[in-house]
Amino acid sequence: MHEQEIIFTQQVSGEIDRQVQAMSPSRVFVLADSNTSHFVLPALQSESAAVRNAQVITIPSGDINKDLTSLQSVWKSLTDAHASRYDVLINVGGGVVTDLGGFAAATYKRGIRFINVPTTLLGAVDAAVGGKTGINLGGFKNQVGAFSNACAVIISTTYFGTLTRDELLSGYAEMIKHAMLTGAEAFGETMTYDISETPGDSDELLSLLEKSVKVKRDIVAADPTEHGIRKALNLGHTVGHALESLAMRRQSPIPHGFAVAYGLVVESILSHIQLGFPSPTLHTLADYVNRHYSSMHFTCEDYPELLQLMSQDKKNRDADHINFTLLRDLGEPQTDCTASGKDIRDALDIYRDMAGI
Amino acid sequence: MHEQEIIFTQQVSGEIDRQVQAMSPSRVFVLADSNTSHFVLPALQSESAAVRNAQVITIPSGDINKDLTSLQSVWKSLTDAHASRYDVLINVGGGVVTDLGGFAAATYKRGIRFINVPTTLLGAVDAAVGGKTGINLGGFKNQVGAFSNACAVIISTTYFGTLTRDELLSGYAEMIKHAMLTGAEAFGETMTYDISETPGDSDELLSLLEKSVKVKRDIVAADPTEHGIRKALNLGHTVGHALESLAMRRQSPIPHGFAVAYGLVVESILSHIQLGFPSPTLHTLADYVNRHYSSMHFTCEDYPELLQLMSQDKKNRDADHINFTLLRDLGEPQTDCTASGKDIRDALDIYRDMAGI
Repeated sequence: MHEQEIIFTQQVSGEIDRQVQAMSPSRVFVLADSNTSHFVLPALQSESAAVRNAQVITIPSGDINKDLTSLQSVWKSLTDAHASRYDVLINVGGGVVTDLGGFAAATYKRGIRFINVPTTLLGAVDAAVGGKTGINLGGFKNQVGAFSNACAVIISTTYFGTLTRDELLSGYAEMIKHAMLTGAEAFGETMTYDISETPGDSDELLSLLEKSVKVKRDIVAADPTEHGIRKALNLGHTVGHALESLAMRRQSPIPHGFAVAYGLVVESILSHIQLGFPSPTLHTLADYVNRHYSSMHFTCEDYPELLQLMSQDKKNRDADHINFTLLRDLGEPQTDCTASGKDIRDALDIYRDMAGI
Repeated sequence: MHEQEIIFTQQVSGEIDRQVQAMSPSRVFVLADSNTSHFVLPALQSESAAVRNAQVITIPSGDINKDLTSLQSVWKSLTDAHASRYDVLINVGGGVVTDLGGFAAATYKRGIRFINVPTTLLGAVDAAVGGKTGINLGGFKNQVGAFSNACAVIISTTYFGTLTRDELLSGYAEMIKHAMLTGAEAFGETMTYDISETPGDSDELLSLLEKSVKVKRDIVAADPTEHGIRKALNLGHTVGHALESLAMRRQSPIPHGFAVAYGLVVESILSHIQLGFPSPTLHTLADYVNRHYSSMHFTCEDYPELLQLMSQDKKNRDADHINFTLLRDLGEPQTDCTASGKDIRDALDIYRDMAGI
């Protein structure tokens, strides 16, 4: 995969035009969802010549629409417009748009170039960087996709001012994860910054975000296709994805980052059981998550389904060994850990106890 | 993309087992179509432990089924079987199976390893080697796909004994193309070897095939993602794909290689018009194609549709400039040529005259 440039700026339109000019495509397409096409595109269209002249493709918003139907509609729009292999797709939106748009671009005519403009904190810190593209299929998250880098990722907090508290918190869970992978100082910083009391579109957040994205970028650069250290980025996600899928099956979806926040706590408990992750740090984390993130109700009767969902995780070699990234301590991830059903049930018990559910 | 090993052997089963053992997957899946599951799999299952123990996924045969429905069914079979990222898919079949199976493997959980076992001459010489995977969409060939190498391609003429004359000729057109890209000696060799008089499962053919695949392998190695010299391999295909698509729209599909054979003649005429490709060589080629390949009927009333189809080709920057690979002479390809509508219509006129249609 080619390198991808990550630009942190509050002048998004100018940066888009600079990037597009450097790529000299025949034509430009913009992918937005039903939210960003209303709330973000008008400003971009008035300020950026590239966006103004682009053909806009819109998909419905929401993770439920990160599906084959939306993907097909993007492929069809590009086909109907006779988009060439030399054209460029600009994905303007949250993780749904950058994941699905990235996959559409990676596969249309076997690959056209694309630019990501994440408009949510979660999209900026996680989805838009790292080359993971894809869609959900058959009830499983990101079941099909490709590793494909954007040519450029333009990160700004400009669009975060209109995000809800839940949306900001959702992205912030990934920043906590990055901090946990980094060390005590970074972790402390995230535990003292209060995202729910701060306006989203602040330069202070942009600066924190830059540090956070750097953690991910460095790990991805060392292992683009996730056969080694990149698995560290899955911290919190084996349990998080299972909770997210369970919620989706119950028709009451929860934000991705909330699932990750709960997953970080459960996997920190597992880390404590298996690797002696320090109990005080675990409690600091659990307190922060309890205080800021509402909880998801589940009981021990849901454990078999949760375990089955974890066994479907992409990181597993087979259904009998569920793969986790755990932590010996802050900044000391250990990839390719496995846990027995008993340990996982114990951790879920302790978590429910800590969360009061 | 990682390297792919290409093995020429008449002992396919042993080679499959050797490859699978070296890859040490958790599980093995085999993709076949309704033909190869009857005519090829039973022998492989009796001789190869890896194939015997594999779960078989079957798709309907034919290019018409190289579509999203078949792709979805493969994704679903892998999902239902809880296939992991560490498993291996063995594609046993012609180009439809290796193209679609390769794309399914490249995208399932963002990529699992796969082995190609081409069972047709066309599949062996063209589809199974070079990392191009994909499916047809919206009436366009290979409209979506990915560049993804098989870990191993096992080439044998073992299964060619049951191919029809048309199927052998279809593959042979790609060998003619490779020879034209190589030089006078290789071209002469293909013009004297009579594929329609020779049994398909011969060691002589395997040896010719090895030379031919080497041409492609060397070009692909120099340019895996088709931004430069690899475009030379598109010789014959701009016109060929348009004729093939036209035939498909008429509900009377023609074999891919036949379309390529006609395309090679038309593009040699264009080469003659634009670059002075030698007339005697053009006539040698046209005679061979006329003698062995039946012709496809079309008139000047079909030209607008053919030109429109050519303008949709993946190689074009935009709809106004149709991109060709042409030849100054045998072994002297020139990529990124464009031709005016008039030149293309003239070439089609001359071709129809030469072919007597």
